[in-house]
Amino acid sequence: MRIVITGGHGFLGRAVCDELLRRGGLAGQPITEIVLADRAAGTEVPQARSVLGDLHETLPRVFAEPVDAVIHLAAAVSGESEADLDLGLRANVDLTRGVLDAARAQQAAGGPTVRLFFASSVAVYGADAALPLPDAVTEATYPQPQNSYGAEKVVCEGLIADYTRRGLIDGRVARLMTVSVRPGKPNAAASGFLSGIIREPLAGVPAVCPVDPAQRVVISSPRRTVEGIIAMLEAERGTASGQLTGRLPVNLPGLSVTVADMIDGLRRVAGDAVADLVSVQRDPAIEAIVADWPPRFDNTRAAALGLQPDASIDSVIEQYLADHHSQTK
Amino acid sequence: MRIVITGGHGFLGRAVCDELLRRGGLAGQPITEIVLADRAAGTEVPQARSVLGDLHETLPRVFAEPVDAVIHLAAAVSGESEADLDLGLRANVDLTRGVLDAARAQQAAGGPTVRLFFASSVAVYGADAALPLPDAVTEATYPQPQNSYGAEKVVCEGLIADYTRRGLIDGRVARLMTVSVRPGKPNAAASGFLSGIIREPLAGVPAVCPVDPAQRVVISSPRRTVEGIIAMLEAERGTASGQLTGRLPVNLPGLSVTVADMIDGLRRVAGDAVADLVSVQRDPAIEAIVADWPPRFDNTRAAALGLQPDASIDSVIEQYLADHHSQTK
Repeated sequence: MRIVITGGHGFLGRAVCDELLRRGGLAGQPITEIVLADRAAGTEVPQARSVLGDLHETLPRVFAEPVDAVIHLAAAVSGESEADLDLGLRANVDLTRGVLDAARAQQAAGGPTVRLFFASSVAVYGADAALPLPDAVTEATYPQPQNSYGAEKVVCEGLIADYTRRGLIDGRVARLMTVSVRPGKPNAAASGFLSGIIREPLAGVPAVCPVDPAQRVVISSPRRTVEGIIAMLEAERGTASGQLTGRLPVNLPGLSVTVADMIDGLRRVAGDAVADLVSVQRDPAIEAIVADWPPRFDNTRAAALGLQPDASIDSVIEQYLADHHSQTK
Repeated sequence: MRIVITGGHGFLGRAVCDELLRRGGLAGQPITEIVLADRAAGTEVPQARSVLGDLHETLPRVFAEPVDAVIHLAAAVSGESEADLDLGLRANVDLTRGVLDAARAQQAAGGPTVRLFFASSVAVYGADAALPLPDAVTEATYPQPQNSYGAEKVVCEGLIADYTRRGLIDGRVARLMTVSVRPGKPNAAASGFLSGIIREPLAGVPAVCPVDPAQRVVISSPRRTVEGIIAMLEAERGTASGQLTGRLPVNLPGLSVTVADMIDGLRRVAGDAVADLVSVQRDPAIEAIVADWPPRFDNTRAAALGLQPDASIDSVIEQYLADHHSQTK
């Protein structure tokens, strides 16, 4: 299997790459090559090939040899997409169409049908004056994104469902929960603080919580997120238990916690001195965005694929400490 | 008000144009010009200006003077879009983005914010193995199109909701029911027979019904459809009764009938000799498409805007006879 990871040098792309290298195979097939396609290089991965540059331009190189699977993670994040509509449309919609059409052209030329994983987002959900959010969101909940990033994800979900229906690709869409704790630097996502309030204090750096600590959020650790992505790619299609049914996206499981729960968890795991580095400075702009996020999900479909949320916020923080001890004090 | 109707020389575009000319105003403002933008001319409309050619190329001319409202009806129909994916993506997605961006550029240059009506379709609905259709479809029902035309409409709905949220346009989306009885020639829509089985016999021409007559369908007369389009454009925004709430599309009202009901209606209105011109020759390909259409809708939102379905199939047929007597025997 030749596997392409777009956004492959991003945090999640690298984590998926590492896990695939550890496993050596995907869906029962040995992995022959992993291609990390990204705009710019992160740290080097000797066992993978990097193809760097604008994906619109590098796609012909990526598809010069047969591609069996694409894990399409490349995206402009929510903050960037909201600040610059054209950037978001290009990075989130047009690039996805580029990937779909490259896969389609490969098949039309007699090559393999690409198994494609698309990382959608819970940003597709939101409340509208005409239709409030239900208490627990399911995949049947009507998506009403309240930011351009979420709208662009909905657009891609629709295109992928149609290309899959036509048999041009074998598309699998999962909506990722907010990944926490992300290592590295803050990004422009509105959800960034949900990693920052854990990561920064653990590194001895003060962090700001921009929302009411009573705010309920849904998070997923990097490991559980990577597990979900690979499970979606490996799932057999069918209607039996444990199979991937239809073309509906799957909401990956998440842990529903309040922000106060997260800070309390940090206190239990790392002590008062660390937790006291978090101060609350409410930012109405971020509060307005976060207030639109669904506080709870029904994850029946993910559970049918064997996927469970993290056990507790404490285990999420302990996992971060185990995986990134060099970045903590 | 300077109003642009894309697909303005199509059947529905012309019907909307005629009704607007009859009224002389829209949303309390006098109409100063109606522009019919279309690929090719239909019959001439002396009171409107035609701009002919590929809309991608003619948009700069259409927007050379300030545009107050766009009624965006131009589309590749379901049969065309299914036969040629690239054609459908271009005509249904890329052209809509072109219109949205022309409106956005006008606003950015200090011009008016365009009030945009987008004709979506009940083709956005369908059953998936993971999520069957409910007994009565509402606007909160998750769209799972089973053809590319429907998928492309969902994509446009998402873009329009986001441009509207950003304040770049004032977008209003209605999902049109299958319009019956359409005058003129058959088109490539899978739903075409729902006009043909009335129109052709009334012209003395045999017609084929390609589905089981027990099949239930939802139709709307041209007059009721035009009424719905104009009501969507004129609706005030707000949450009070009779106002257009939020950015959720509105399903226009439709009459739920079986195909047998339609033929019986033809028999009552036009007699045995006319109804006997319809013969049933089931076509599995068309039956499969039609079987996916929702048989019933909950039209609470349309009713709140004062919109009601046609009273009966007999009144639909009588309306066709009144409006198109020259095309009947």
